[in-house]
Amino acid sequence: MGAGSWGTAFAKVLYDAGTEVTMWARRPEVAKALATEHRNPGYLPEVDLTGIAATDDHRAALDGADIVVLAVPSQTLRENLGAWRADIGPDATLLSLAKGIETGTLLRMSQVIAEVTGAHVGRVAVLSGPNLAREIAARQPAASVVACADAARAEAVQHACAGNYFRPYTNTDVIGCEIGGACKNVIALACGIAAGMGLGDNSIASIITRGLAEIMRLGSALGANPVTLAGLAGVGDLVATCTSPLSRNRSFGQVLGAGGGMEAAQQATHGQVAEGVKSCTSIRTLAERHGVEMPLTTAVHQVCHEGASVSDMVGWLLGRRIKPE
Amino acid sequence: MGAGSWGTAFAKVLYDAGTEVTMWARRPEVAKALATEHRNPGYLPEVDLTGIAATDDHRAALDGADIVVLAVPSQTLRENLGAWRADIGPDATLLSLAKGIETGTLLRMSQVIAEVTGAHVGRVAVLSGPNLAREIAARQPAASVVACADAARAEAVQHACAGNYFRPYTNTDVIGCEIGGACKNVIALACGIAAGMGLGDNSIASIITRGLAEIMRLGSALGANPVTLAGLAGVGDLVATCTSPLSRNRSFGQVLGAGGGMEAAQQATHGQVAEGVKSCTSIRTLAERHGVEMPLTTAVHQVCHEGASVSDMVGWLLGRRIKPE
Repeated sequence: MGAGSWGTAFAKVLYDAGTEVTMWARRPEVAKALATEHRNPGYLPEVDLTGIAATDDHRAALDGADIVVLAVPSQTLRENLGAWRADIGPDATLLSLAKGIETGTLLRMSQVIAEVTGAHVGRVAVLSGPNLAREIAARQPAASVVACADAARAEAVQHACAGNYFRPYTNTDVIGCEIGGACKNVIALACGIAAGMGLGDNSIASIITRGLAEIMRLGSALGANPVTLAGLAGVGDLVATCTSPLSRNRSFGQVLGAGGGMEAAQQATHGQVAEGVKSCTSIRTLAERHGVEMPLTTAVHQVCHEGASVSDMVGWLLGRRIKPE
Repeated sequence: MGAGSWGTAFAKVLYDAGTEVTMWARRPEVAKALATEHRNPGYLPEVDLTGIAATDDHRAALDGADIVVLAVPSQTLRENLGAWRADIGPDATLLSLAKGIETGTLLRMSQVIAEVTGAHVGRVAVLSGPNLAREIAARQPAASVVACADAARAEAVQHACAGNYFRPYTNTDVIGCEIGGACKNVIALACGIAAGMGLGDNSIASIITRGLAEIMRLGSALGANPVTLAGLAGVGDLVATCTSPLSRNRSFGQVLGAGGGMEAAQQATHGQVAEGVKSCTSIRTLAERHGVEMPLTTAVHQVCHEGASVSDMVGWLLGRRIKPE
């Protein structure tokens, strides 16, 4: 459900793993291009999607689906699910590809899914890991994590998508996977800003490390297992997103760091505001509510929403008094 | 003590922090160039070393030194220290910049230092973190960890090197810092091999994550604090070394991955064998002795010393059966 970059790449992963796939696209012209030309004109147009069905009718897409893959942007998930919930099968697994924290409610995506659909928590799964869509679409090897409170359902999803270039591992720690996935976008913005300012690999590695520390602090406060955050859905996803030029959040930050404003950054990333720009607000509020210090997330928020300069942002790195690690 | 790349950059860090510095170089012509031209002809020749004294006489260098900075290659540390020990002050702090595990004895560098000099453990400190020498020499901001069982001595070293671009944090976990520093070179070789084979950022991030997991397993078995390995001397150093084109170990692996042999790799990295090529043997043996599985380190060893092909090496990433994380 959703024909963006990751939705398109993951449809291909499922198809290559031998799973029958129907893609739902919001816009009829995209659904038509998918169904007739077997290409997505808007995202990853180089990928051959032959064999994958497509429709703009959500009922047709959801009809008989064992796994409903939710691949819409995190801040639109609630609205979309509201329109779809009546047509989702009563035992279908709801697999979230969305990474973010809902603005206002501060809910994780799996919580939004359970709340809107009424599905019990064991039916809701999330996929997270170092999974830059463009590389996966090119069938580059990648590992990932399928998390679900119900281990058997996680395994079913694992088997639906495991193939010779995509290797999913199961985990029951949904909270850890979602917190890792949501927070890394904000840290990638910080890395982009630093890179745009001309800072080198030592600085990027330090930001990643301190970012991981604050993600782990938030995760622990919310009940995540620190081991998850040291794994593919934490460190793995964080490192890929923070270091790759293919990362939208990093690219967005890089324009900011080089002195461009929010509009210039948006133009440079296909007109979209990077997810981290939106989620830094909810993550910061979530952290405050749980008494967790997240200095990097706060700094990114100040740059994106409070008019702070990017040089103020990197001040955190060296501006604090020397002290124990 | 040692005028290689990191020794030279760290001499400059100390000098910039307001500390009086004398560099010892093994070769008289290097010591002379350092003393008269204030440049190191062999390493970082662009860096102005004005204000730093230099000599090839270890007695002159060690005389009255409060902190003896050991910046020779790890496999030569024992021999060098044997020649120096009589001239090291009885209360001098011995600060190791060397990263590796001694071949044969399987000792960490701080253990070699304590054994050869007879210094009690509280006098031995190590410096480790995301510290690519070339960036630090260019005064790019970097954070690091000074670890010493004696916290007060760690603080004294911290104050000797803290400045406006170099930010050291203290830690008492010497084992964690040394294990992180030694093992990351092997993982960087693996990342270089993957990159040389054309694998992308998802794969590199997965290798870093699995590398961290095996480093943490070994560290825990040896008494390290996992928090250290999630910090600057673990994740931070690992990420910098594994992702930067400035990393010698990564560059060495990249030549191997692209189909060059050990000799071609050596030529591409200024004639030196990368540290990870040597330390993978000791680390593997250490892991076996403690019953710790280190599949990546084992795979790198097979490529470097047992004639395995690089494609065998990356087979680990996707070749194993799907399972829980």
